[in-house]
This record gives sequence, C-alpha cells and structure tokens, in this order.
Amino acid sequence: MELGLVGLGKMGGNMRERIRRAGHTVIGYDRNPDLGDVHSLKELVDSLTGPRVVWVMVPAGAATQSTIDELAELLSPGDIVVDGGNSRWTDDQKHAEELAAKGIGFVDCGVSGGVWGLENGYALMYGGDAANVARVQPIFDALKPEGDFGAVHAGKVGAGHFAKMVHNGIEYAMMQAYAEGWELLEKADAVTDVREVFRSWQEGTVIRSWLLDLAVNALDEDEHLDKLRGYAADSGEGRWTVEAAIDHAVPLPAITASLFARFASRQDDSPQMKMIAALRNQFGGHAVESK
Amino acid sequence: MELGLVGLGKMGGNMRERIRRAGHTVIGYDRNPDLGDVHSLKELVDSLTGPRVVWVMVPAGAATQSTIDELAELLSPGDIVVDGGNSRWTDDQKHAEELAAKGIGFVDCGVSGGVWGLENGYALMYGGDAANVARVQPIFDALKPEGDFGAVHAGKVGAGHFAKMVHNGIEYAMMQAYAEGWELLEKADAVTDVREVFRSWQEGTVIRSWLLDLAVNALDEDEHLDKLRGYAADSGEGRWTVEAAIDHAVPLPAITASLFARFASRQDDSPQMKMIAALRNQFGGHAVESK
Amino acid sequence: MELGLVGLGKMGGNMRERIRRAGHTVIGYDRNPDLGDVHSLKELVDSLTGPRVVWVMVPAGAATQSTIDELAELLSPGDIVVDGGNSRWTDDQKHAEELAAKGIGFVDCGVSGGVWGLENGYALMYGGDAANVARVQPIFDALKPEGDFGAVHAGKVGAGHFAKMVHNGIEYAMMQAYAEGWELLEKADAVTDVREVFRSWQEGTVIRSWLLDLAVNALDEDEHLDKLRGYAADSGEGRWTVEAAIDHAVPLPAITASLFARFASRQDDSPQMKMIAALRNQFGGHAVESK
Amino acid sequence: MELGLVGLGKMGGNMRERIRRAGHTVIGYDRNPDLGDVHSLKELVDSLTGPRVVWVMVPAGAATQSTIDELAELLSPGDIVVDGGNSRWTDDQKHAEELAAKGIGFVDCGVSGGVWGLENGYALMYGGDAANVARVQPIFDALKPEGDFGAVHAGKVGAGHFAKMVHNGIEYAMMQAYAEGWELLEKADAVTDVREVFRSWQEGTVIRSWLLDLAVNALDEDEHLDKLRGYAADSGEGRWTVEAAIDHAVPLPAITASLFARFASRQDDSPQMKMIAALRNQFGGHAVESK
Repeated sequence: MELGLVGLGKMGGNMRERIRRAGHTVIGYDRNPDLGDVHSLKELVDSLTGPRVVWVMVPAGAATQSTIDELAELLSPGDIVVDGGNSRWTDDQKHAEELAAKGIGFVDCGVSGGVWGLENGYALMYGGDAANVARVQPIFDALKPEGDFGAVHAGKVGAGHFAKMVHNGIEYAMMQAYAEGWELLEKADAVTDVREVFRSWQEGTVIRSWLLDLAVNALDEDEHLDKLRGYAADSGEGRWTVEAAIDHAVPLPAITASLFARFASRQDDSPQMKMIAALRNQFGGHAVESK
Repeated sequence: MELGLVGLGKMGGNMRERIRRAGHTVIGYDRNPDLGDVHSLKELVDSLTGPRVVWVMVPAGAATQSTIDELAELLSPGDIVVDGGNSRWTDDQKHAEELAAKGIGFVDCGVSGGVWGLENGYALMYGGDAANVARVQPIFDALKPEGDFGAVHAGKVGAGHFAKMVHNGIEYAMMQAYAEGWELLEKADAVTDVREVFRSWQEGTVIRSWLLDLAVNALDEDEHLDKLRGYAADSGEGRWTVEAAIDHAVPLPAITASLFARFASRQDDSPQMKMIAALRNQFGGHAVESK
Repeated sequence: MELGLVGLGKMGGNMRERIRRAGHTVIGYDRNPDLGDVHSLKELVDSLTGPRVVWVMVPAGAATQSTIDELAELLSPGDIVVDGGNSRWTDDQKHAEELAAKGIGFVDCGVSGGVWGLENGYALMYGGDAANVARVQPIFDALKPEGDFGAVHAGKVGAGHFAKMVHNGIEYAMMQAYAEGWELLEKADAVTDVREVFRSWQEGTVIRSWLLDLAVNALDEDEHLDKLRGYAADSGEGRWTVEAAIDHAVPLPAITASLFARFASRQDDSPQMKMIAALRNQFGGHAVESK
Repeated sequence: MELGLVGLGKMGGNMRERIRRAGHTVIGYDRNPDLGDVHSLKELVDSLTGPRVVWVMVPAGAATQSTIDELAELLSPGDIVVDGGNSRWTDDQKHAEELAAKGIGFVDCGVSGGVWGLENGYALMYGGDAANVARVQPIFDALKPEGDFGAVHAGKVGAGHFAKMVHNGIEYAMMQAYAEGWELLEKADAVTDVREVFRSWQEGTVIRSWLLDLAVNALDEDEHLDKLRGYAADSGEGRWTVEAAIDHAVPLPAITASLFARFASRQDDSPQMKMIAALRNQFGGHAVESK
C-alpha cells in the first residue's frame, strides 16, 4: 500500500526503509529538505492517492500538535492519521476529536525498537477503532518483528500510547534492577569478575533478558564503565507513568524509585541533602562539608 | 566422575537426574529414605572412591550446618564439599575454615533454574580456589545449560552465593517492575486487553525477557489472576541483598521497594497505616474505619 | 472590618467564629440554609459595603470554580476574592485572570489547623499582590495563631496553595516516619511498653513535635490501635506534591513512599502482588495462596 | 549518689556537668588524661564506694567492648554497668551475660540530646531489670529534661538501645521530609521567600516540631544553604533500624529511602547510574556523558 510518513529522523528514517523493504510505497516528508521525498506537507498529501494514511513520527508535544493541525486542513474525509511519536496518551483523544470533526480517522501507535528496529523489527502498540486499525494493518505488519509477537491492538484511542508508556515505565525499573545489582557486585570483595557473572546470567537464570544482553555488551566495551558519567536523562514516559499511577491510586514504588534515581543523577549537588547536613549540624554539632 | 549428593528434594532430585544423563555416577542421600540411594551420610561417604566430591543441596541454615559438621567428621583430607544450597554468603567462609582444618576443600555454588532446570539446565555461580573448582568442573558442565553461558567462577569462597543472592535481588525488582506495569494497565480505561499487550511485548521490545514469557503463561492460565491472593513469600536472598547493600553503603531503592512490597502483602492489616489513620483523626477529625 | 465568607462547614464555621471573636463583622453564606447568615451569594454581596472582601472556603475543584464564576458576575471592580480552600495551585492563576478581567483582585490562601484551629489559630500561607494581601491582612491577623509565626505572604498568586501543598506533603512523610517506627517497636520483643516510649519522646528528643503529641493522645485512647483499620485516605495535596516534584525533576522518595503506602492501604487485595505470586509459581513451583 | 563515668567527649563531658549540677558526685575517666578526674579504669573503680554504678559513654563497637571487658575484671558482684553509648541493641544481651557471669548488673541506655543536652536535658530510653534500673534512677533523673517526659524504662536489656535506634530512624525520615519539601519550594517560581514559609510553619501547622525550628535556624545562618555540600554521614542507627525491620518483615519505605539518600549523597559519581546510561546508549543510541 501507499503511506505518507512525516518525520525522517533516527526512528522515522529507518522505519521508511523497513516499510519499503516489505514492498510498500512510502512518501516521506521532513522539515530537513535533505531527508524528504517531498518538500511540504501539502506536496505529501497531494502525492498520495486517497483514501490516504499519513503516519506522523515527530517529537511529542508542539511538533506533533502543529503537524496534526496542518494535516487536519490538508486531508480529506476518510483519510487516516497515525501518531507514532511518543505522545502523552492524554493528547490522543484530543487529536482524534480534532480530526474526527473533519471526517478524518485517527490511530495512536507506540513504537519500541530504537536503533535495532530496522533489522529486528519494531514492537508496536496501537489504539483506535477496529476499522481504522485494519486500514493501517499492512504497515504494522511491515514494521513489526517476524514471529508471532511484537504488535498489538491495545484498545481504544490512547491505548497504544498508554501501553507504550507503561512499557517504558517497566523498562526504567528493569534497568534500575540490573544497575543496583551491578553496583553491589562491584563492591563485594569476594566477587573478582563481575562482568563474567553478568555474562553467565544470559542463560539458565530467572533474570535473563535482552537488557541483560545489552549490559554485557556495554561491559565488554568498558568493563567498569569508567568512561561514563552516572548521568541519566528521561524522555517523559517515566514521568507520565507515575502520573497515571497517581491518577489511578496505584502504588508504583520500584518504577518511581527508578525515575527519582535519574532525577538525582542530574544534580551536581543535592539541595535536599544540604538541608539534611544543616539539620545534623544544628542538633548534633556534626561536621558539615563546605563548598 | 563420581559425585555424592546430599538432599534429593525438588531441586536435588532433578539435579541428580541431569548429572546422570551426562554420564556421571551420582550416589544420593536424603533424610527421606524413599528418595536416597544410600541410607546415611556415612554410607554415602563409604560408597565413594576418594578423593571424593560431595554436593550438599539442603535448606540453608541449620540443615546445611549440621550436614557440613557431619561431613567434616566423615570425609578425608583431599575431599571436597560443595554447598549448592541457598546459604548466606557470610556462612561460606566459616564453612571453608571448618573444613580446611580437616584438610577438606570447599566450593560454594548458587544454583538458579527452579522447576525448569532439569530440561534447560541450571545456571551456576561458584566461588572457591581454582584447584577445587577444577575438580568439580565436570559436574558444573553437566548441570549448566547448553550454550556459552550459564556458569561462572565468580571469585573466592562466598562469591558464588553472593552472586546468586544479587541475582535474586535483581529478580525481585524485575518481577515488581512487570507487576506494577500490569496493575496500571489493568486500571486504564482505554486498554481493553492487557494480556494481549503483555503477549505482544515478547518480541521487539526493550523489556522482553524470560520472566515476561512466564507472565504471559500465567495470564493465559488466569487472565486477571482472579484465582490468586496478592501474597508473596520471600526466601531470604532479597533480605540479604539489602543487608549487603547497607554494609557497603550502596543505595538499592528498587530492590528494597520490591522486598517491602512482599512484606506488606503478608499483613492482614497494616499496623503503620493504623497509626496514619489515628493521626489523621487526631488533627483533622478525619473519619477512621473501625474494625 | 467586614468579610463575606462562603462555605460554613467544619473549617469555615469555626473560622467565622474566630474572626468574629477578633471583632470583625462576618456575613456567612452556605448552600445549607441552616448554616448561613444570608441565603444566596447575591444576598451576601449585596450585604457587604464595598470595596468588598469575599473569602471562599468550599471544596476544591468544581465547587470552588462555580463559586468564583458566580462571584465574578456579582462583585465590582476593586473587590477581592480570597480562595482559602484546598485548591490545586495550578488553578490559582486561572482564577486570578478570570477575576482580573472584571477588575476584581485575587488572593490564594492555604489554611492549616483542622479541628484545633478555632482555639489555637490557623496557620496561613497566602499568595498574591502586596496591595491585595494588605487589604485582607486584618482577617489573616484574626485567624493566625498568637505569637510571631503562623502566617506568611509566600509569594505571587499560587504561592499560598503551593506552600500549603508542600506542607501537606511533608506532613505525609512525618506521619509515615512515626508510623513506621511505631510498627517496628511493636514487633520488638525487648520493648515492653511502646506507648511509654512514645510518651517519653515528647521532651528532650530530636523528634519531638506536635504530631508526636497527637500520636500519644491516640495511643492513650487505644494502646495498640486495635480498634482501627489500617486504611488511610488522601485528600489530593500529597498527589499534587509528587506531581509538582515530577514537573521540577526533584526526587521525593520519602513523601512518595508515604503516598503509595496510603494507596496500598486502600486495596483489599493487591493486583501487583498477585502477579508476583503468579511469577514465583511459574518459575519456581512456589505455592500460591488461592482465594 | 556516686557515679563512675567512662568517656568524657562531647557527650560525656556535658553529662558529667549536668549530673554534678544535680548534686551528685561524678568521677570521670577518659583515655585523654586532660579530660579525666582519674587516670585509669582501675583508679576509677577504686575511687568509688561499692556497690558501684559505672556509666560507659564511649564509641559503640570495639571501644565499648574493651571497656566492658575491663570493667568485668575490675568490678565486684553487686555493681552495675550502664552502657549509654550508641551500641547496637544486639550487643546488649551479650554484654549483660558477660557481666552477669561475674555477678555484675547491666542497664543499656539510649541518650538523645546532642549539644543541647547540657541545658535542656537528655532524653533517655533504658532497658534492664527493674532492680538495676532503680539503682541508676537518680542519675536518670539528673540527666533527663525537666517536665513529665524525656525518660522511659522501655523494657528488658536491649530495649533502651532499640528504642533509641528507632528514634533515630524516625529522625532520618523526618529530616528527609523537611529536606524534600524545602527543595521543592526552592524550585517553585511562585514562592518568593522559602525561608519565611518555613519560619511561619513554626506555629499552628501540623508539621511544627523542634527539627523545623532548627531548619529555620539553619536558614537564618545561610538562606539557601549555599555554603554547604549536600553530603550526609550516617552513624549506624539508621542502618540498624532497616536491618531490624528486615528481621521482623516490617516494610519501612520512608526511613529506608532516607538512609539511601544519604548513601547516594556520599558518592562522587553513581556506579548504578553509569549502568543506566550505558543501557540507554545500547538500546536507543542515547548520548552518554563521558568523563
């Protein structure tokens, strides 16, 4: 089938390639004219034979909003917009309604796979009406990994991004689990080769996983991670996961601890620990470290 | 080679079978006379041609201690004892010294694999002198999974149980990660089929793992886990992991949160939350729920 | 001075009394005609000599919004509205702008004091322009405790509710601190009289506080809190505190742990712990507890 | 009465002064000859009229152990040793038995008060047999604050140090509560004077406490704590509190979070966050910060 693809960055560019390998026609547009097949959203829309499917793969927030606003003007009733970016699930219903007012369908799709997706396939979680999802299905089939798994119609509009957000929340806590264990092993006198312990865990253990394989790769490149700073960004989904948990009164201690560890990793000095130091000094005369 | 194996329960019984399949001779002893090949530790020791290797696979603590005490009397200089149980790593040095006083070697070995080990192999983490480890190596090779991984000489005496303990600590937090994510998905209105979301994650995602596969198995047996109580035991390694972290001043927020969630799951009512309710009532006149 | 007071419930009713004791004139309105001095917001506004100050003390959210909407229609330029309810700080700017469009001033005020406020005074944290705050100052002076402390102009519009929200977040973690300590003491064999330990802490210790005094009161009424269920509601400020922390990338582990403990206290059975039980059963054949 | 006091450091020296002010005779010994009234433990013992009471106020662990060992040789049946140091409660039973073998009584006593104790009195929590406690009571009465509270016979041997340990655990979480709240307020745009907010909280609020008063003192000395590093030591009781909780399967999320925050504050760079950074780089090509 024919697909319009907006956003040809690290993710979108590889996705275009994977969809084309499956035999579909992809017309891509990017703000960067070096990357696109066409030079404007209007040209993209005009190039597609209706009823059209346009997949938006741009940064969440303002960029996605303005792209959808513009597509709402350009597309025709019966067309479909897929938001494959990392949008907050709470934006999906709003986007669906905005497009529905013009007779345009909407599907939200969370995409996992990173730099490995081109070769291994992308895991996809999508939400929307069954009829709209069915229209996009050939593209989902092209993107997903081979095998029985890797793609799911998770529910109504918003369900795709919600499921992807929870995926990322789980990812935070799994990474934190390995990271905590690694630091503790590195501290233990008896354990003389932590990297080999991690390597051995790749088979037969309860904790074997793809993330564990990646940890071994990382340790093979830099055995004690000496070249790195202990600094971790967060891209939003972890925060939204905790916010969703608060909305639903679900306790999320491990995922939240993982998010907070990232926040703390980005502080040069911890204001709250200054207060702890100040209080210890006040009541106990405990020495403080001055700057 | 020839191995004496003490303890033929759920784990030990299957391990005997797997070692025999690899062509070794195993003489097993268990307190339960229906399970053993011999009827006493003395008979076990007498049946083995020296220098002997005796693998102890009994519950950690008193049972392991008394078995090692008895073997210290029965074995001869040059023999080796392997503790394959879930012993606390702090016991290993003590056992090694007790046996070394009689000229007997000691190797500690953490074993992972559960009910799947007989067919898939057991992941092994062992600690001790290279010479002692080399003597046991054919048994390690028989027990471990096929493939390049699944067994590691982690370091000195104690390193095997330490590494296994950390493995279990990581396991706690990974399980907690999936569990938190599952509960949140079950609460989301938009997501209509949580089980299919979990199933889809088995390929192409960052969080694919063996534990995820098991979660899907569990959901296939009971889609919303309605038949279960939210009650989780803990077998000691999680507690020891946190204690080791405290000894080394390593923050372990996700693993500790997972341990505490299990503690809380076993309380019919939470004493600390009674105090919260009492305080809210005191300062705000907030209603309390009485029994 | 003259004050209009909307909302005469547990908080508002006592506040009217305390302000009157200070010699001011309060005209109160409540939806419940048995409580009010007048029978409609219009009558309230008409009864006040301009420029008017109207204090809104109704539940946060819809009730506060509709009251402010109605006052925006009834009041005159130069009048001032004070929102003394538990509004989310993010609503304050919106309310200020809505009222400013009619020339009406706005002050937000967080109020602490509960059932003790009538006699001891109410702690007040308010936000807004200095000129507007100055107009309300006689009322703040009447409500606040005697002594040098208990009232603060915290900053711009929103600062009052933000400060009150953080106050409540701190309160959550302090209560959790005492509650955790109490449960642990109750479990210790050596400690034979936990209540007397708590009582003794009221002088000379680092942890003496008003909340500790209340804990002793509660234990005097019910030594082991046997009559209570370990069930704690939350009124919103704890959730907002965590959300604000996420917005600002501030790690808040103790306050968040306290919020999650409340969430968990309200679950009859824990879905996430069902998943933990299911996974343990899958990999280890561990027994599960069925319903 | 007459008291032998071993250890005349920051705590012991002030305690000698306060006991003397109450009219008792104190003979003090310290390793530092400039501080003591006598020059050896033997001289101390010989100077006291039997039956003697000797209060040990030296660092927990080796110093306390060797002092008690020596006193066991020097004292006579019917004498009493009080351990007023920060000993782990698990040492108390051992010390009591060692001394009981010589007919010497033992009382353990947790002491709170820091640099404020000389003037305000020391909060005391003691454990032991009623008869032994009664013998020491005049000294407890001299040390404790005026008023009805501040001293408690908490239970059997060990109960005093256990209660003091839990006191310190609660202290950790209360300090963390204020510290988290302070950091969040400092980040909020609307709040223009965080110090004044803290100051105002000293009356009428739910969170007023002595620690809050100290926080205000600290902010008066250094409004934004700019002169301090966010670095906090821990003196052992917090760790022991978490270990005791693990022994009793009591969830302690807020106190443990506070302990871990201190651990993290002492790391120049976080090993576990290096692993998080490494994993993000592996799966997503996310940029890492190199040293």
